[in-house]
Amino acid sequence: MPTEAEQPLKDGDLLAAVDLGSNSFHMVVARYVLGQLRIVDRIKETVRLAEGLDGEGGLNPDVMPRALDCLARFGQRLDTIPAHRVRAIATNTVRALRNPQSFLMPAETALGHGIEIVAGREEARLIYLGVAHGSPPAEGKRRLVMDIGGGSTEFIIGQGFEAVERESLQMGCIATTRRFFGDGKLSRKRWKEGRTEITAEFQQFATAYRRRGWHDAMGSSGTIKAICDISIALKITKASITAQSIDAIREKLLDFDKLEDIRLPGLSAERRPIIAGGLLVLDAAFSELGIERMYVSDHAMREGVLYDLVGRASDTDPREASIVALCNRYGVDAAQSARVEATALRLFDQAEAAWGLDGDNRRLLSWAARIHELGLAIAHSQYHQHGAYVVEHSDIAGFSRTEQQILAALVRNQRRGVHLGSIEKLPDRLIPNTLRCALLLRLAVLLHRSHERDPLPLADAIADGDSLTLKLSKRWLESHPLTRLDLDTERDHLQEVGRKLLIKTA
Amino acid sequence: MPTEAEQPLKDGDLLAAVDLGSNSFHMVVARYVLGQLRIVDRIKETVRLAEGLDGEGGLNPDVMPRALDCLARFGQRLDTIPAHRVRAIATNTVRALRNPQSFLMPAETALGHGIEIVAGREEARLIYLGVAHGSPPAEGKRRLVMDIGGGSTEFIIGQGFEAVERESLQMGCIATTRRFFGDGKLSRKRWKEGRTEITAEFQQFATAYRRRGWHDAMGSSGTIKAICDISIALKITKASITAQSIDAIREKLLDFDKLEDIRLPGLSAERRPIIAGGLLVLDAAFSELGIERMYVSDHAMREGVLYDLVGRASDTDPREASIVALCNRYGVDAAQSARVEATALRLFDQAEAAWGLDGDNRRLLSWAARIHELGLAIAHSQYHQHGAYVVEHSDIAGFSRTEQQILAALVRNQRRGVHLGSIEKLPDRLIPNTLRCALLLRLAVLLHRSHERDPLPLADAIADGDSLTLKLSKRWLESHPLTRLDLDTERDHLQEVGRKLLIKTA
Repeated sequence: MPTEAEQPLKDGDLLAAVDLGSNSFHMVVARYVLGQLRIVDRIKETVRLAEGLDGEGGLNPDVMPRALDCLARFGQRLDTIPAHRVRAIATNTVRALRNPQSFLMPAETALGHGIEIVAGREEARLIYLGVAHGSPPAEGKRRLVMDIGGGSTEFIIGQGFEAVERESLQMGCIATTRRFFGDGKLSRKRWKEGRTEITAEFQQFATAYRRRGWHDAMGSSGTIKAICDISIALKITKASITAQSIDAIREKLLDFDKLEDIRLPGLSAERRPIIAGGLLVLDAAFSELGIERMYVSDHAMREGVLYDLVGRASDTDPREASIVALCNRYGVDAAQSARVEATALRLFDQAEAAWGLDGDNRRLLSWAARIHELGLAIAHSQYHQHGAYVVEHSDIAGFSRTEQQILAALVRNQRRGVHLGSIEKLPDRLIPNTLRCALLLRLAVLLHRSHERDPLPLADAIADGDSLTLKLSKRWLESHPLTRLDLDTERDHLQEVGRKLLIKTA
Repeated sequence: MPTEAEQPLKDGDLLAAVDLGSNSFHMVVARYVLGQLRIVDRIKETVRLAEGLDGEGGLNPDVMPRALDCLARFGQRLDTIPAHRVRAIATNTVRALRNPQSFLMPAETALGHGIEIVAGREEARLIYLGVAHGSPPAEGKRRLVMDIGGGSTEFIIGQGFEAVERESLQMGCIATTRRFFGDGKLSRKRWKEGRTEITAEFQQFATAYRRRGWHDAMGSSGTIKAICDISIALKITKASITAQSIDAIREKLLDFDKLEDIRLPGLSAERRPIIAGGLLVLDAAFSELGIERMYVSDHAMREGVLYDLVGRASDTDPREASIVALCNRYGVDAAQSARVEATALRLFDQAEAAWGLDGDNRRLLSWAARIHELGLAIAHSQYHQHGAYVVEHSDIAGFSRTEQQILAALVRNQRRGVHLGSIEKLPDRLIPNTLRCALLLRLAVLLHRSHERDPLPLADAIADGDSLTLKLSKRWLESHPLTRLDLDTERDHLQEVGRKLLIKTA
């Protein structure tokens, strides 16, 4: 039975993506028409969330009202779109917070939707997906895509709709302007120092990227668009950025001693305070990567999120491919995972209504079951911990950080005492159902612990508040004394976290 | 230049292995003759270290004198054998200590040698190696080997000299006797309960083992030898243990109500207090694994350690194969690792004398360089931490836990601020040189950070106390401004831990 989000998109369905960037918040609404997305609404607000970072992981409370007001406006527009067709994503600035929940909780309330944090490289994948759908690269050719955000800059090499190299560096236009021109003053000396430091950070990937090579380069983001506009206004190029146009803009820029004095043709007043840092990053990228010309895409991460939503609603959910890749890399026993997955989902379907579980819960439980033994590749002892470590820290394409934390919490909790710590660090709204899914996964792992090939004759679940009744075949249980013992232990484990396990035989 | 330990063995060379087991301490001395080992001395002392465990990770001080006295006697015998030909290993009981150093430090002083802790599965590999050298399995056939120690029991399936499946369970004869017959009383009811609990722990591997199958089964360890002796004394078998002989011994054993009353033909008084737990484990193993007959080997882990030493002195060091396997699993960039390794070893050879580094340091530095980028398979961000996690927690054949901790500390310290925590948890005697090797690895990683293919024109090290002078080609450094910047940062990192980095150009 496909859940809501798994139902294929129908003509006329609406989807929406919200991008809580470090400089601006974006919302884009699209209609699904004949297998394509047609953008029907866009809102951009310059919130400058990154300005509120205090450098120690705190957020200046002054920025909260403008962020929440913006999200409330977005929320009103999203009101008519089914929740499972909306995806809201936070990136660099929220990643940098010591306590992201202090921002996310009021933000989710204002927006009326959950907000997921994505890691830098997943952000890079989504940017590439958006840009590639805006103008697909030539058949069989590689493309370099670059996006200078407020807090981070992403570099991707892709082919078709697939990102093959993804990098995310902590250097956006706001962060870089602050770092090198924090007092508002410009000078050649500072420019040179900044260039050296930025280039140092490129070292870790530049050689590999140059070796891989590309056919064309595209940039997305407000910074790159602004620099292209200046190039055109200066009549150096017609529709792109070149190494020459960057040189010319830099020379003009360095004629000013203060950021506030900068005046360049084509440059908006809003962009003025942060153009220096953005140009510095682009200047270094052109030199170090040997870029000669860069075209500008109107698409960015938000469009990537929309196309990702389309993929998730079809049979090309990128998360599915990532789970398969994980299983292969770590040599997971596919037959055992399939048995555990089948039992876990069977229990889920029976507990779903009583426990108010949803389609997202079901999908994550299914994936967790598929990879639950992954940690065995590291060591048998404490393999549930090793698996959770790998799942939490890996770059897993298609998953948000929040989803990875849920998967990690499920893998961590597959056996031994219930480890509430890994569940409680999730956003509050996700805790109850994640714990419930963990209980179901635990039972499935327990029932298949001896890796027998025979299917279970009966395993039904009746969920009711904090208690779960498991119905098992009397005959089967009598011939499985070890499972009886394990169930006794499990009852104790659940009791320790205030949950009740009852066993009924029939 | 091969280091001492790498020099091939010569006819007449002596080697020794010390096994600090949970029940007995063993020492075996062998002479290398015509490519074979000839045992020239054996000492066994029943120290019963596991009796001193207080269940909370502490060691009852009463057992210390008998352990230290024994090690002092061993130490006297080892006095004439070169240090690099001696390997002393501690297993389960020391693994279980909250603070192993509190035991290891006086123990190492008494023995006059460093003592390494090995993990359960590495113990399993060494046991198999010892048993297989004692009587090699039939060509192309698999063999099951079982060893019931005081604290843990190992199950191995092997072929030739290679262990293909290794398991170590926390159930030795002392631990199991304590767990089920802790008050000294025997009964059928307790036997049955114990059987069920032990069988439950077999579940995790028994199916896989039975599926893999074997041609013959061999047991090592005092417990298995004792049970075989009883079988023979009872005239049920001539030279082995069978399912029938176990049944018969169990029935006789259960005629007694107290452990101290047990009298069985062939059973020594020393073995009496711990035979019940040992027989319980063997009984469960015969049933669950379907073993029909088991022969007894005189060889055990200590002989495995000797053959491992021979391997380490030849070109079949099992650690080398493990490093290659790790590189393959995690897709390490071989060319980059080789560059970093070459530079690290070059710096090592120049600093060796001044810093008192030795052959073990050199080998571990070389392996750390080979796998330093391993964590990239998990994620780029914080990859040094991910790599250290994998190295510390993986089952890596041939390495002791201590060696894995050193490797992990080196990988962890390859970049960013120096993380003393990972080095300071090593045994005290290993800390200074591990930190020195970490400094050398850091420089090698730094110098090759841009992954250039060209070799470094010059990189010489002059070590002197807490300072290290790095000599680089002036021309090369001038054309590498990013390396200059990195070296400035490195100087600050080292200063934070009281070390000094000087750069000289020529």
